[in-house]
Amino acid sequence: MRVLYPGSFDPVHNGHVEIVELAAHLFDEVIVAALHNPQKGTPLFSFEERESMLNDSLSFLSNVKVVMSTGLVVDLAKKEKAELMIKGLRAVSDFESELQMARINKQISGIETVFLPSTTESSFVASKYIREIAQFGGDVSAMVPEPVAKMLKEKSK
Amino acid sequence: MRVLYPGSFDPVHNGHVEIVELAAHLFDEVIVAALHNPQKGTPLFSFEERESMLNDSLSFLSNVKVVMSTGLVVDLAKKEKAELMIKGLRAVSDFESELQMARINKQISGIETVFLPSTTESSFVASKYIREIAQFGGDVSAMVPEPVAKMLKEKSK
Amino acid sequence: MRVLYPGSFDPVHNGHVEIVELAAHLFDEVIVAALHNPQKGTPLFSFEERESMLNDSLSFLSNVKVVMSTGLVVDLAKKEKAELMIKGLRAVSDFESELQMARINKQISGIETVFLPSTTESSFVASKYIREIAQFGGDVSAMVPEPVAKMLKEKSK
Amino acid sequence: MRVLYPGSFDPVHNGHVEIVELAAHLFDEVIVAALHNPQKGTPLFSFEERESMLNDSLSFLSNVKVVMSTGLVVDLAKKEKAELMIKGLRAVSDFESELQMARINKQISGIETVFLPSTTESSFVASKYIREIAQFGGDVSAMVPEPVAKMLKEKSK
Amino acid sequence: MRVLYPGSFDPVHNGHVEIVELAAHLFDEVIVAALHNPQKGTPLFSFEERESMLNDSLSFLSNVKVVMSTGLVVDLAKKEKAELMIKGLRAVSDFESELQMARINKQISGIETVFLPSTTESSFVASKYIREIAQFGGDVSAMVPEPVAKMLKEKSK
Amino acid sequence: MRVLYPGSFDPVHNGHVEIVELAAHLFDEVIVAALHNPQKGTPLFSFEERESMLNDSLSFLSNVKVVMSTGLVVDLAKKEKAELMIKGLRAVSDFESELQMARINKQISGIETVFLPSTTESSFVASKYIREIAQFGGDVSAMVPEPVAKMLKEKSK
Repeated sequence: MRVLYPGSFDPVHNGHVEIVELAAHLFDEVIVAALHNPQKGTPLFSFEERESMLNDSLSFLSNVKVVMSTGLVVDLAKKEKAELMIKGLRAVSDFESELQMARINKQISGIETVFLPSTTESSFVASKYIREIAQFGGDVSAMVPEPVAKMLKEKSK
Repeated sequence: MRVLYPGSFDPVHNGHVEIVELAAHLFDEVIVAALHNPQKGTPLFSFEERESMLNDSLSFLSNVKVVMSTGLVVDLAKKEKAELMIKGLRAVSDFESELQMARINKQISGIETVFLPSTTESSFVASKYIREIAQFGGDVSAMVPEPVAKMLKEKSK
Repeated sequence: MRVLYPGSFDPVHNGHVEIVELAAHLFDEVIVAALHNPQKGTPLFSFEERESMLNDSLSFLSNVKVVMSTGLVVDLAKKEKAELMIKGLRAVSDFESELQMARINKQISGIETVFLPSTTESSFVASKYIREIAQFGGDVSAMVPEPVAKMLKEKSK
Repeated sequence: MRVLYPGSFDPVHNGHVEIVELAAHLFDEVIVAALHNPQKGTPLFSFEERESMLNDSLSFLSNVKVVMSTGLVVDLAKKEKAELMIKGLRAVSDFESELQMARINKQISGIETVFLPSTTESSFVASKYIREIAQFGGDVSAMVPEPVAKMLKEKSK
Repeated sequence: MRVLYPGSFDPVHNGHVEIVELAAHLFDEVIVAALHNPQKGTPLFSFEERESMLNDSLSFLSNVKVVMSTGLVVDLAKKEKAELMIKGLRAVSDFESELQMARINKQISGIETVFLPSTTESSFVASKYIREIAQFGGDVSAMVPEPVAKMLKEKSK
Repeated sequence: MRVLYPGSFDPVHNGHVEIVELAAHLFDEVIVAALHNPQKGTPLFSFEERESMLNDSLSFLSNVKVVMSTGLVVDLAKKEKAELMIKGLRAVSDFESELQMARINKQISGIETVFLPSTTESSFVASKYIREIAQFGGDVSAMVPEPVAKMLKEKSK
């Protein structure tokens, strides 16, 4: 089964990597898709930067492919012939809006979403905190893959 | 009893229509008020468009009146002689901020708010998802009244 | 409109009284029904005691009637010709199970439920804490009507 | 991949059946396991009754097997050679305790849990409400498979 | 400042120990009080056993005292001359009932409660899961202090 | 012990003042720090205005110091030699993101955060509602210190 893992990945962090690793173990092929979510404002990293950091951070997994997309996630799922979408769950506040999106995506496309729990070690990691800390020169290297830590250091200069 | 149902209605969707229908059955008169919430940024639809789509979508209910307003919801309630405000509840994340607003509105005006539950069919429908899907050409006709589906199609061109 | 306000009322507390008072202001007639919920175990107060404390605590409201029932709440609503059920909402954890019950009651009977928010003063009051505190001789007189405070004092002897 | 779907199933309802159906579509084989949870008290239906109603309700799915168990769910998963556990998610209040159990099960056994969302139609259905309604002679036939509706009718006599 | 840390501690686990350790660092003296909560049913461990395991598990902290109590927690706080109560917070579902109890305790006694967050490593550990797993012979030694692991092993025989 | 209480304080309201008052009672010294949170957009009040209103509102507490900061809160804590951070908790939706931030701050700096519950009287007060109401000329004087009410009145002209 081929599954799609959509997200903003601005930037990708260790919690994301864990979800991809688990999905790559559970399913035949995992498409990791960085989407532009206009409701979240201007991203810190461009599509090119996010594609590069995702590829660098996930290269150790052979059945994972990284794509960029600006459209609807369900259209992307169809284009990529993904039969299922996966999302990571960290916390209660994630859960409710993810469940709403899963139901709306099912209604407009028929595609189901399953949820993979984050590990406790990464349950407090979120891209918005990483951006904020890195912007002030804080050290986030324990929370992101090495290539991302480097790119954040350059951005914050 | 005359009740006020405030919201952004950007756009009005089937979940809203159900709440108005229930309120029109429970109470003598329902004032549906589209308010400008500056915290939600620029709306997709202008006041004129929202007034038009609310009137078109609710014309089957004889004891419903549609108004537009830019001020405080409690001032509007007083102006319209509404003795009560109603809000729809879809989900847990709605509930807490709605409860805070109900308490703050009661404190500054004495006006109470009661909550009407959404049906399960519409519990995942939210204006922000409708705007996002329609913007990318997705089909939201199962989630909005017919006049709204048309206006969304024109907007997304 | 005649509405039904079901609960365990073991014992009735100030938060309940506020909800009945608001309902008696909003609707023509309010039926307050103490139900036996077998999932909550043996109640502290018998039906006779609860009927007595409800009548004593609500006698200042002329359009309120107190009934006891052991069956399904929706059967009681039909028997009492109540067109609507009301529930108080204190907190997020209340909300989700109340919403589930509202939806299940609607499905099996067609009867709707609307939710009235508790005031902040009574938002932390719950019968289970009152029973526990009173049992150890703690003073709960600020949280319950006077007749209930007396009955609790006698019980804890 | 072989997955385990544990639960009390006291009784099995339409929401459970939907989750099994989705799991049977996503994975190679699904083991549905009714477990005795001593924290939930004496079940309404015996193991024999639950095994019978699960088999009757799921016989239309060829890659599903029903088992009964009294021990730890992770020991059962190992015995049945299941590589993954699945749980349905209905609501926020489900989610947090399910996430805790998923993490504790992973820690003591290494076995992961993934979550499948309920459909909106079944999101308010829960075994405890079904038991309560059926016990008072209420009609739950819209919420449970036909064999379960029959067994509930006989129980409530 | 002398603080009181009340709980069931049936049994004490690593999450509890972390909270006591943090409290012992922040405040002058910490009273750890195992209380009997009649709403939680018969405990697995007697007061003597819980006193013993708390003393054994916390002996490395010099400003910590262990007491047993059957009455109201606020009466105990007064008796022990504690000016403040502390509670650990693991998860959202903990939070709401803890906040209600904090407010009710403040109302009946004037004593405040402050909340210390659990670490992510212990955020999923809860006494009820530990009892359940140990009862079936599961290995919980990674989640409890060594003396507790031993006592659980003996209990489950 | 010296503690840091960070926030936006745009504007400071009665709920904040209560938290500072409690902290000033519990701890030796309280540093109240208004931070610029770029994720919350342009503040209504400048740093100078917020410093002035904090000083005016908290002058009755002798062990409280007000500072302004634009960097990371953990860097400020170190600079101010604060050994602990405190946050107020009003509601469930506050709690989860505050817990995430507490964990991330501990990971990057080792500094712990403890949570103080708001009183029920101030549990619904939030700066964003105060800004919105004041902007439309609504009366918020029951929710903010007197100097803030004055500044809001001037702003809204």
